[in-house]
Amino acid sequence: MILHDYLPSGNGYKVRLLLNLLQRPYEYRHYDIVQGETRTPGFLAMNPAGKIPVLELDDGRHLSESNAILYYLAQGTEYWPESHWDQAQVLRWMSFEQYSHEPNIATPRFWLGHLGLNEERKAQLAGKQAQGRAALAVMDDHLSRHNWFAAERYTIADIALYAYTHVADEGGFDLADYPHIGRWLDRIASRPNHSLITAE
Amino acid sequence: MILHDYLPSGNGYKVRLLLNLLQRPYEYRHYDIVQGETRTPGFLAMNPAGKIPVLELDDGRHLSESNAILYYLAQGTEYWPESHWDQAQVLRWMSFEQYSHEPNIATPRFWLGHLGLNEERKAQLAGKQAQGRAALAVMDDHLSRHNWFAAERYTIADIALYAYTHVADEGGFDLADYPHIGRWLDRIASRPNHSLITAE
Repeated sequence: MILHDYLPSGNGYKVRLLLNLLQRPYEYRHYDIVQGETRTPGFLAMNPAGKIPVLELDDGRHLSESNAILYYLAQGTEYWPESHWDQAQVLRWMSFEQYSHEPNIATPRFWLGHLGLNEERKAQLAGKQAQGRAALAVMDDHLSRHNWFAAERYTIADIALYAYTHVADEGGFDLADYPHIGRWLDRIASRPNHSLITAE
Repeated sequence: MILHDYLPSGNGYKVRLLLNLLQRPYEYRHYDIVQGETRTPGFLAMNPAGKIPVLELDDGRHLSESNAILYYLAQGTEYWPESHWDQAQVLRWMSFEQYSHEPNIATPRFWLGHLGLNEERKAQLAGKQAQGRAALAVMDDHLSRHNWFAAERYTIADIALYAYTHVADEGGFDLADYPHIGRWLDRIASRPNHSLITAE
C-alpha cells in the first residue's frame, strides 16, 4: 500500500497510527499542501477533492477521507467492534471529530503553526477556539464516565479523536483544563506499537 | 422510535428520508434550535453536543450524528452495500458531505434563511459559497461518470448528499450550473416512498 500524505496533518496521522498499531508496512509519499502539491492533475485523479490522506491499494484503487480509510483498515481487527450499536457509536464520535472538533481545533493549529494569521483568520480565531473548548468539554465529560469513546475499548473513534487532541496546545488550547482527556491521552500513548515509524 | 429533530434541518431530513424509504414508523419531536431548545439539560442528556437529530430507540438508548444514525438504520437494507470497499466509499462520501459540503452549502442557507447576516457572517459568506461551488463541482464530475456516489446504487451516501443539495438554491447556489447533479436529484426524487410523511 502507498499512503499519500502531508506529515504535519492530523488526518494523515490517524491513518499512520492505525497502520502502525496493525504493524502493516506501507510506502509513504509526502505532498506539501501549502505549496499546492495536492492540486495537480495527478493528485486530483486520486482524490478530486484535492485532500490528503489518500490510501492506494496494491491493485491501484484509491480511498480518500481519513475516517473512511480508518474504517476500511480496521475491518476484522480489534479496532472495529462487533455490534451495530457499538459501530454506530464509533461513527458518531468520528462524525463529531469531523464536524465539531477538527474545524475548531486543527484549523487554529494550522493557522498559528503553518499559514499565519491574516485579517480574515484573526477575526475567526477566537470564535473557533471557543467552539474548540466546547468540543474538548464534551470529550472530557464523556471520559469522566468511560475509558474509551465507544464499545468500552480502544477503537478507531479514539484514534480519530487522538490525532488533533494530542497536539491541541499548538492551536492555543490548554489541556490542563481537561484532566480526563489527559488520562485518556496517556492511556493511548502507553499502548504497544503506539510510537510511529515515521516522524510526527 | 422517536426522532428528536428540527424541521428545517437537512441533517434531520437525511434521517427522515431513510425512515420513509424503509417505511419505518416513528414519533417526531420538534426542537427550535434558534431558540436554544437543544441546549436544555434534558436535551444535553440525550446528546452532550447539543445537536439534532437524535434517534431514541424503544429501549431508551440515544444515537446522535445524522450519518451515524443513517449507518445504524441502513444495516441489513439495500442502502448499505456488502463489500468493505463499497462500504468505505459510502463513508468517504459521507465524510465529504460533513466536512466539505455541509459547512459551505448548509451554513449559507441557514444564515440567509434563518439567522440573517451580521457583519461576521457577511465577511465569511462569499468564501463559503466559493467552497460550496467547489464541492458541487466535485459531485457533478463524479456524477458525469456514475449514477450514484458509491457501489453503483442508491446508498446512504446519496441520502446524506441529497439532503442539503436539493435545497442548495436557498444558500445562493445555482444548480443549473451542475447538470449531472440535476439528473441525480431527479433520479432520487422519482424513487418509491421518496415523499416524506412529515412536511419538509
